[in-house]
Amino acid sequence: MRIQVVNPNTSAAMTETIGRAAAAIAGPGVEVRTTCPSMGPASIESHYDEALSVPGLLAEIASAPADGYVIACFGDPGLEAAREFADGPVIGIAEAAMRTAACLGRGFSVVTTLDRTRGRAWDLAHRYGVAGFCRGVSACDVPVLEVEAAVDAVAAACRTAVAADRSDVVVLGCAGMTAQRAEIERRVGVPVVDGVQAAVLQVESLVRMGLRTSAAGEFAPPPPKPYSGPLEPFTTT
Amino acid sequence: MRIQVVNPNTSAAMTETIGRAAAAIAGPGVEVRTTCPSMGPASIESHYDEALSVPGLLAEIASAPADGYVIACFGDPGLEAAREFADGPVIGIAEAAMRTAACLGRGFSVVTTLDRTRGRAWDLAHRYGVAGFCRGVSACDVPVLEVEAAVDAVAAACRTAVAADRSDVVVLGCAGMTAQRAEIERRVGVPVVDGVQAAVLQVESLVRMGLRTSAAGEFAPPPPKPYSGPLEPFTTT
Amino acid sequence: MRIQVVNPNTSAAMTETIGRAAAAIAGPGVEVRTTCPSMGPASIESHYDEALSVPGLLAEIASAPADGYVIACFGDPGLEAAREFADGPVIGIAEAAMRTAACLGRGFSVVTTLDRTRGRAWDLAHRYGVAGFCRGVSACDVPVLEVEAAVDAVAAACRTAVAADRSDVVVLGCAGMTAQRAEIERRVGVPVVDGVQAAVLQVESLVRMGLRTSAAGEFAPPPPKPYSGPLEPFTTT
Amino acid sequence: MRIQVVNPNTSAAMTETIGRAAAAIAGPGVEVRTTCPSMGPASIESHYDEALSVPGLLAEIASAPADGYVIACFGDPGLEAAREFADGPVIGIAEAAMRTAACLGRGFSVVTTLDRTRGRAWDLAHRYGVAGFCRGVSACDVPVLEVEAAVDAVAAACRTAVAADRSDVVVLGCAGMTAQRAEIERRVGVPVVDGVQAAVLQVESLVRMGLRTSAAGEFAPPPPKPYSGPLEPFTTT
Amino acid sequence: MRIQVVNPNTSAAMTETIGRAAAAIAGPGVEVRTTCPSMGPASIESHYDEALSVPGLLAEIASAPADGYVIACFGDPGLEAAREFADGPVIGIAEAAMRTAACLGRGFSVVTTLDRTRGRAWDLAHRYGVAGFCRGVSACDVPVLEVEAAVDAVAAACRTAVAADRSDVVVLGCAGMTAQRAEIERRVGVPVVDGVQAAVLQVESLVRMGLRTSAAGEFAPPPPKPYSGPLEPFTTT
Amino acid sequence: MRIQVVNPNTSAAMTETIGRAAAAIAGPGVEVRTTCPSMGPASIESHYDEALSVPGLLAEIASAPADGYVIACFGDPGLEAAREFADGPVIGIAEAAMRTAACLGRGFSVVTTLDRTRGRAWDLAHRYGVAGFCRGVSACDVPVLEVEAAVDAVAAACRTAVAADRSDVVVLGCAGMTAQRAEIERRVGVPVVDGVQAAVLQVESLVRMGLRTSAAGEFAPPPPKPYSGPLEPFTTT
Repeated sequence: MRIQVVNPNTSAAMTETIGRAAAAIAGPGVEVRTTCPSMGPASIESHYDEALSVPGLLAEIASAPADGYVIACFGDPGLEAAREFADGPVIGIAEAAMRTAACLGRGFSVVTTLDRTRGRAWDLAHRYGVAGFCRGVSACDVPVLEVEAAVDAVAAACRTAVAADRSDVVVLGCAGMTAQRAEIERRVGVPVVDGVQAAVLQVESLVRMGLRTSAAGEFAPPPPKPYSGPLEPFTTT
Repeated sequence: MRIQVVNPNTSAAMTETIGRAAAAIAGPGVEVRTTCPSMGPASIESHYDEALSVPGLLAEIASAPADGYVIACFGDPGLEAAREFADGPVIGIAEAAMRTAACLGRGFSVVTTLDRTRGRAWDLAHRYGVAGFCRGVSACDVPVLEVEAAVDAVAAACRTAVAADRSDVVVLGCAGMTAQRAEIERRVGVPVVDGVQAAVLQVESLVRMGLRTSAAGEFAPPPPKPYSGPLEPFTTT
Repeated sequence: MRIQVVNPNTSAAMTETIGRAAAAIAGPGVEVRTTCPSMGPASIESHYDEALSVPGLLAEIASAPADGYVIACFGDPGLEAAREFADGPVIGIAEAAMRTAACLGRGFSVVTTLDRTRGRAWDLAHRYGVAGFCRGVSACDVPVLEVEAAVDAVAAACRTAVAADRSDVVVLGCAGMTAQRAEIERRVGVPVVDGVQAAVLQVESLVRMGLRTSAAGEFAPPPPKPYSGPLEPFTTT
Repeated sequence: MRIQVVNPNTSAAMTETIGRAAAAIAGPGVEVRTTCPSMGPASIESHYDEALSVPGLLAEIASAPADGYVIACFGDPGLEAAREFADGPVIGIAEAAMRTAACLGRGFSVVTTLDRTRGRAWDLAHRYGVAGFCRGVSACDVPVLEVEAAVDAVAAACRTAVAADRSDVVVLGCAGMTAQRAEIERRVGVPVVDGVQAAVLQVESLVRMGLRTSAAGEFAPPPPKPYSGPLEPFTTT
Repeated sequence: MRIQVVNPNTSAAMTETIGRAAAAIAGPGVEVRTTCPSMGPASIESHYDEALSVPGLLAEIASAPADGYVIACFGDPGLEAAREFADGPVIGIAEAAMRTAACLGRGFSVVTTLDRTRGRAWDLAHRYGVAGFCRGVSACDVPVLEVEAAVDAVAAACRTAVAADRSDVVVLGCAGMTAQRAEIERRVGVPVVDGVQAAVLQVESLVRMGLRTSAAGEFAPPPPKPYSGPLEPFTTT
Repeated sequence: MRIQVVNPNTSAAMTETIGRAAAAIAGPGVEVRTTCPSMGPASIESHYDEALSVPGLLAEIASAPADGYVIACFGDPGLEAAREFADGPVIGIAEAAMRTAACLGRGFSVVTTLDRTRGRAWDLAHRYGVAGFCRGVSACDVPVLEVEAAVDAVAAACRTAVAADRSDVVVLGCAGMTAQRAEIERRVGVPVVDGVQAAVLQVESLVRMGLRTSAAGEFAPPPPKPYSGPLEPFTTT
C-alpha cells in the first residue's frame, strides 16, 4: 500500500518534518511518500494563500498515483476537488484530527498558528459536523514556518485553551506541530491529537477496507474541460 | 463609482451576457466593467473547476482597481480570498441571490445546471445562513455553456421545483441564466431572483453606504509571502 | 420610484431624523417619504410596545401607496403582516442591517438601547439565518428617545462590544442611531452598519429588479374578514 | 385558582366551544373563565389577522385579573407581550400542544386549517425547540370558523399526515378543533393532542408550583409609556 | 389516579424526600407512590452509574402498575426503554423541569451536583429541544447523597449561575434538591423549577387528558425476547 | 496490541461472525478477541433491549483487559459508561461507520434491521455530528438474528435507500451484516461501510497514536460506589 502525503505549501523543511511523522505512524507494509508542490505559497496563513495552494496540491496528487492521499495543511485546501479525481481516498488533516478528537472526550480545543486562521478552523468544524464538540479555537500567534521550533509557545497556548474552554482534548491546528504531539500531551495532561498521524491512519484504514470516495454523484471525475493560460496542464479529458 | 464584475470562467460569450445584465441593472453614474480571466477552466462544473478558477479570478480582481467587485459564478469561488485583498467590498452571486430571495417569501428553490453542483449550492446556503429558507436545490441538467440557449429547459426545471418544494421564490443557480429572469418569472408565476443583478446592486449599495470588508481580523490583507512557479505573480508584499 | 419609510413609534423628532438619513442615501430619482403612525406607543422598548405598534404601522402602509416599504424599528414589528398586503416589497431595518453585516466580516456585534431588547435582536438573528454571524448583542442602556443625543454612550458600547465579542463589524440596533453611523465607525475602527440606510437601499434594489414579496402562498393578501371595535378600519375585503 | 382563557378572535361561538373544553379539563377547585376581545378580527388566518388580534387580546388579559392565562389560538399571538404584564403565567396553545406531543413519541404531525398558516406553525416549532420532533405541518383546508363542524375533513387530514410524515402523534393546529380530540384519536389510532386542554393544565400546574414568568430581565413589566390615538388606553404607568 | 415515582438509586432517605415532594404537589384524588429499586447504585454520578441504574428502574416500573410514571433522577435514565413497556405515560424530571423553565423566561441555568454530570445535562437539553433556552449548566460540587443537606452551597451556585449566564430562571439539576425549591427561589430572586414536582404534574396532566406514549412505532412494546443470566427476569413474551 | 470486541447480545453465532470480520481486518500484530456477555438479551431490537444489554457489556469490558475496545451493536449501547472505566479507547460501530461514511461522499443512507430501530440511528447521527451527512435511515425489516442469512433483503433495501435518498454511500446498520459488505457493495454500486471493520481500525489507529479517552473531566473513572442486589459486582472502589 502506498499513501501520498502532500504538504500544500512549498517549504521543504516542513515537508520533511511532516514526512517523518507520517512514515513513523504508518503500519507495516505501508509506504508513505511525502511531497510538496513546486508552485504556490511558501506557507498558508490566509484564505488567499489557501486558495492559491490548490493548483500545486492538485498537481502533486495527479502526478503521484497512490492508494490514498493526505492533505497535510490544517485548512484542508482543495479537499473536495482532490476527491473528484484522485485514485483513492483523500483525507484532510483537520478532518481527521477533529473527528478523532470527538471520540476522546466531550469537547476539544483547537490551537492554530495565526489568529486570522481561526475562522477557517471553525468553518471546517461545522463542515465536518464536529462544531458541537469544538469548545474553542485559539491561536499561539506563531507564523507557520516558525511553529516547529516554538514548542513552548504552542504548549502554553494549549494549556491556556484547555483551561479557558474547559475541554478534554487538544487538536493541533497546524501540520508544522506534528512532531510536538507527545511533548505537548506530556505538558498539558490531556490527549493531544495530531492530524498528520490521524489522517495517515484514516487513509490506511480506508484502503484496508477497500473504501474510496463514492463516484456516484457529486464526486465523480470532473467533466472534460479545456483549461487555458498557465493552468492549461489541468485540462481534463 | 466603478464596479468590477468577474466571470471566473474563460468563456467570452458568457462574459458578454453577464456584462449586459450587470450594466443594465446598475444605477445612474455607476460604471460596470465585466471581464473574465485569461487562465483557468472554460466553465465551472465541478469542485475541481471551481478551485482552479480562483487564481484567474484573483488576478482579474488584482489588476482592475474598482470600488467594489462581483464574483459572477454561482459557486462563489474565491470569495473569502478576494475579500482579503480587494480594494472594496466583494459579493458573490449565490450569496446575493439567496439572501435576496429570503426577503421575498417563506422558502425558495435553487435551480442549477448539472446535478453534481447541487451539493455546492447547499454548502453555500448553509454558509450564508439561508438553509432554513432553501426548500430544495435541483438541476436542469444543461451544461453551463449551453444554459443561456436553454430557457425552456430551465423554466421547466423551475416550474417542477416550485411545485415539488412548495416554494414561493426561484433562485437562478448559474450566471448564464441571467438574461432569462423575466421570462422565467413570467412562465413560473413566482418571483425569480438572478444573482448577477442582485450582486451588482448589493455592491452598489455597500459602496454608497461607504462600507467594505472589515480589515479588523480574518479579512485583513494577507501576510507578505513569496510564491513560486507559475504562481509567482501572486507573491504578496 | 417612491419608497415609504415608516417609523413605527409616534415620535415626530425621531421620524425626522430617520427621514433625513433615508433620503440622503436613496439613489437619484428615488423619492423617500418617511412617516409615523398617529396611534401607538411613543417609543418601542418592550414586546408590549412592539406588538401595539403594529396597527399604526399597518395603517401607515395601507394609506400610502408606494413601490416599496421600510419598517424603521430594529424589532422589525409587523414585517410579515405588512408583506401580505403591501403594494411592494417590505424590508425591516434589523433584517437589512444584519444581512448586510454578514457580507462584511466573520462576525458582527449588535448594540441596542435597553438591555431588555436583546432577546428580540437574537430572535431576529435566528429568523434571518444570521445567528452564526452574530457574535453578541449588547445594550448601551440609553432609552430609545434619548439615543440620538447619546453618541458617546453608543460609541463606547460599540467599542466594548467589538472587543468582548472579537467581532469585525458593528450593527446599530436602533433607528435612532442612524445619524451616528459615520462617527461611530470613525471612533471604533470597524465597519458600522445602519439599518435605515441598508433597508432603503435593499428596497430600492428590489424595486429596480422588479421583485416583490411572493404572493404564491403564505404571503398572499389576507382573506377577507370583518374587524370590530376600534380596529374596524382594518376590515379586509 | 382562576385561569383566564382568551380566544383572540371575536367569534362568540368559538369562544363558547373553547370555554367548554377548558372548563372540562381543569382540576377540582379551578375556575376557568373564557372570553374573547371586543375588537379585532372575526378569525385569525393570516399574519395580518394575527398581528391585529393582539391589542384585543392584551386588553382582555389586562381587564381580567387571574392566577394564570391561556392564549387560545394556535399562532400564540401576543404571547411575549402578555408575559411582560400579566399577573400570572401565560401559555399559548401551540406551545403547550407541541411540547406535550414531544413527550409522547419520536415525532408529531401538526394539522392546521388553511394552508397559509403552515409557516407560522413551523416558526413556533422552532421557537419552542420542538422542530426536531415536528415531522410535518399540513392543512385540512377548512377556514377557522367552519372547522368545528368539519370533523371528517380534519380527521382525514390527520390520517393522511400520520402516514405521510411517519409520525406517532397528532397535534391539532386550531383551537376550533378542541372538541374533536377524542373522536380523531379514535379514528386515527395515535395520540391526539389538543392545545386548549394542554395549556389549561400547564397553567394549572405552574400556578400549583408557584411559578410565573420571570421578571428578572426581558419579561419585566414594560417601561411606562404614553400611547396615542385609539390605542391610548394601553398607556403604561 | 395513581402515579408511580421511581427514584432510580437505592437510597431510602432520598426516596423519602422525593416522595414527600411528589405527594405534596399532586392534585386531589391523585395517589402518588414513590419507590426505589433493590438493585443498582447507591447514587448516580457518572454514565456508569446511570447505565447500571436502568435494570432496577425498569423492574420497579414493571412491578407497579400505575396510570403514569416519573423517573426521578436528573439524567432521565431509561426513559425511552420505560416508554416502550410502561402502562401509562412516563416523564423524566430533567425533561419536565427544562421544558417548564422554557415557558418562564428567555433562558435558564441548570445547577447540578458534580461537575462531571454537566455533559449529560447538556445532552438532555439538546434531546428535548431546549438547548436554545439553556444558558449554562454548572455544578455545586456536592455529591448526590449530601445535596439535600447542602442548601447553602446549592443556593450559592444558583446565584452565581444566574449572574454568569444572565439567565431568568433556575432549574434544579438533582432530585435531591426538591425540598429546597422555595428557599432557593427566595434567596436567588428568580423562578426556580424543581423537576420532581414538574414531572408529577406533567404526568397528572397527561393522564387527565387521556394521553400516553404512542404505540404506533418506535415505542411499541418490545419484541418478545429471551434474557439470560441474572437478567433473565426481564425476558419479554 | 490486543483489541477486545464485544457483541452486546448473547448470540454465540452472531459473535462468531463478528469475530471473523474483526480479525480479518485487523493489522499485523493486532490480536482481536471477540466475546459476548453471559447475561442480557438474545438480540437488541428496542430501547428496552439496548438498556438491558449494558450490564453484560460492561462486565465483558471489565473482565478482559485490552488496549482498546469495540462495542459491536449499531445502537452503541453503553458507550459513554464504557469510556469512563475501560483501560483504553472505546469505539461504537455506529460511531465508526457513520464518521467513516462522511469522508466518502456528500451523504449516506443507513439501512437497519427493524423499522423501530430507525429513531435510535438518527439519535446517534445527531450525537456524532453527522446528521447533515445522513440522508436517510431505512429498515430491511429482518430481525437481527436472521439478518446474516438475508443478504438479498439487505441488498434490496440498500439499493432502494440509495435511490430514494439520492445518497453516495451506504452504512450497514447492524453488526450482523458485517460479512455482507463486499457483496452489497458489488450489487449496489456505491461504497458500503461496515461498522465492525471501521471500529476495529479506528481503535487500532488510536492505540497506535497512543490516544485514549480523556480522563480530564466527564470521562474520569466513576466515583467509588456500592451497588446492591444482582448488580453488586459492579461496585466501584
